[in-house]
Amino acid sequence: MAILNDLLLRTIAGQSVERPPIWLMRQAGRILPQYREVRASVNGFKALVKDTELSAVVTVQPVDELGVDAAIFFSDILVIPECMGLDYELVEKKGPLFPKVIENRKDIDQLISGEEAASKLDYVFGGVANTLELLNERVPLIGFSGAPWTLFCYMLEGQGSKTFSKAKAFLYQHPEDAEVLLDKLTDTIIAYLQLKIKAGVAVVQLFDSWAGVLDQQLYRKFMLPRIQRIKDAITEVPMIIFCKGAWFALEEIGQVGSEVIGIDWNIAPNYARKILGNDRIVQGNLDPCVLYANPKEIENHTRQMIEKWGKSHIVNLGHGVYPDTPLDNVKHFVNTVKSYRY
Amino acid sequence: MAILNDLLLRTIAGQSVERPPIWLMRQAGRILPQYREVRASVNGFKALVKDTELSAVVTVQPVDELGVDAAIFFSDILVIPECMGLDYELVEKKGPLFPKVIENRKDIDQLISGEEAASKLDYVFGGVANTLELLNERVPLIGFSGAPWTLFCYMLEGQGSKTFSKAKAFLYQHPEDAEVLLDKLTDTIIAYLQLKIKAGVAVVQLFDSWAGVLDQQLYRKFMLPRIQRIKDAITEVPMIIFCKGAWFALEEIGQVGSEVIGIDWNIAPNYARKILGNDRIVQGNLDPCVLYANPKEIENHTRQMIEKWGKSHIVNLGHGVYPDTPLDNVKHFVNTVKSYRY
Repeated sequence: MAILNDLLLRTIAGQSVERPPIWLMRQAGRILPQYREVRASVNGFKALVKDTELSAVVTVQPVDELGVDAAIFFSDILVIPECMGLDYELVEKKGPLFPKVIENRKDIDQLISGEEAASKLDYVFGGVANTLELLNERVPLIGFSGAPWTLFCYMLEGQGSKTFSKAKAFLYQHPEDAEVLLDKLTDTIIAYLQLKIKAGVAVVQLFDSWAGVLDQQLYRKFMLPRIQRIKDAITEVPMIIFCKGAWFALEEIGQVGSEVIGIDWNIAPNYARKILGNDRIVQGNLDPCVLYANPKEIENHTRQMIEKWGKSHIVNLGHGVYPDTPLDNVKHFVNTVKSYRY
Repeated sequence: MAILNDLLLRTIAGQSVERPPIWLMRQAGRILPQYREVRASVNGFKALVKDTELSAVVTVQPVDELGVDAAIFFSDILVIPECMGLDYELVEKKGPLFPKVIENRKDIDQLISGEEAASKLDYVFGGVANTLELLNERVPLIGFSGAPWTLFCYMLEGQGSKTFSKAKAFLYQHPEDAEVLLDKLTDTIIAYLQLKIKAGVAVVQLFDSWAGVLDQQLYRKFMLPRIQRIKDAITEVPMIIFCKGAWFALEEIGQVGSEVIGIDWNIAPNYARKILGNDRIVQGNLDPCVLYANPKEIENHTRQMIEKWGKSHIVNLGHGVYPDTPLDNVKHFVNTVKSYRY
């Protein structure tokens, strides 16, 4: 398979490139009028996630509209708890809500896991296949999964939280049961990513969105060994690991050995480079709020960030793009990067 | 004034002490049945904040019930926006809500500030005086204020937020107007803390609860100079500065020169000690979720934390105690510290 714009893949392979590639976390979403139109035509976010045609359509929209260097398959991290047997709803303007949450070992034992669970997600793999057709080899397709801890959070809390204190409390109260659930999640994530790769994604990204509520001790004990197991099981395509807020574990995340390390906006380039080295490929990390500023400021901040990182860098935001970001500003960000030359 | 239990003050003064002092952020609050009883007797949280008798009563409750080594005067950080002219409500289970928010320079210009604003907070200063009477010199009384950034967040957003993206966007979009508002806040915080000290608090703590949504550049440009100005203006009593989530600015926070630096649970003791030195007095930083574990685990984590910090340490949580923490566990935490000997 020859990808027309293979800048992302060449960067990940460590080849010399003329500029950094760019894509945005949450690029397939509310910032695009085309997305909002599709979203309005279906009965809820989950209907869109489960629609193998429309999920492909919205995945490709930012490639057409923004000219980004990669597509990321539109989905939801919570498809994994669901395929394991824990249903959820998405409440408009409030986010995910699990009618039943994990409370004890019995609840954990009842969950299915691994390939048995992941193979239920046919709509994802079908959607990936449809996306590849629509993309027609213009840019590489990324597939993602939530990391064990972030999924664990939702399964214990039943919804978003500022502190995820119920999920964290479970780690302190029932460490052995927590490990059983984290292992089941890890098995399922591995099977899911392998099936996504089989369906055709060229890169995978692991999102640990709530890593930052933990500390080094908990992250080291419960999470890093499982992230390592996922990395070790995915040998066919490069992996991006993005543990938001986990500055305290950056060195150890680096040692996991993923091809790319996602960096949030809290981490300054010189801090990360000191820990990870100048040749390590990083992805990030413009503050999403810069995209509310005027074009000149967006340009300044973007160029400054690229120069601070140096080469071996994939441009992205340090978090998903906020839904109310003006579209013209997003375009200006993308175009600034595309006209940059090392 | 001779304080019977002056362990906190001796620790801050750098004297040799037999064990670390302990108090808890949010110790005067929902964890105590005595607090919940008082709270139920008044018409809302704000009524309690404005009641010079009852605010003193709830301030002293944790001294009686938990045996902590310090009291912290019960109040709300949002009394400052309010005295500057921006009213707010507290919506049950949702938190603060400002009917009107700051949108432009005109809104900022209309706010009063400094002593003119702070002097409106008579109910606080009266409450402090009443607390001192109830305390009867048993333990020192701490007075607190929100830091400029954290107050700015609420004044721009009108409510809590996961990202505070509106407040951050304003820093990028209108940096000069932002500085005017931050200066007005700084003036008011200084006047407020000085009046609190005049009323009798022995220590002050500055809370920058939302520091962690910024990065090093923004924190350095907008916030650190103002925190420095507050520190320089408060010469009469020791100051604790707690910038939650601002690990990226810890070195510069240290350089501000406050007597004590508050540390959240994300920051490991060895990381902080490397940056701040072994003799710097730190306050923190047990993960509040440890208090959901069993007594043995609470004890282990607490003793481990004390040993990792070494001397020059005030025990606290790394964040306010969560309201649903079992009271017996909080007591076990306090007693573990009180029976510890260096």
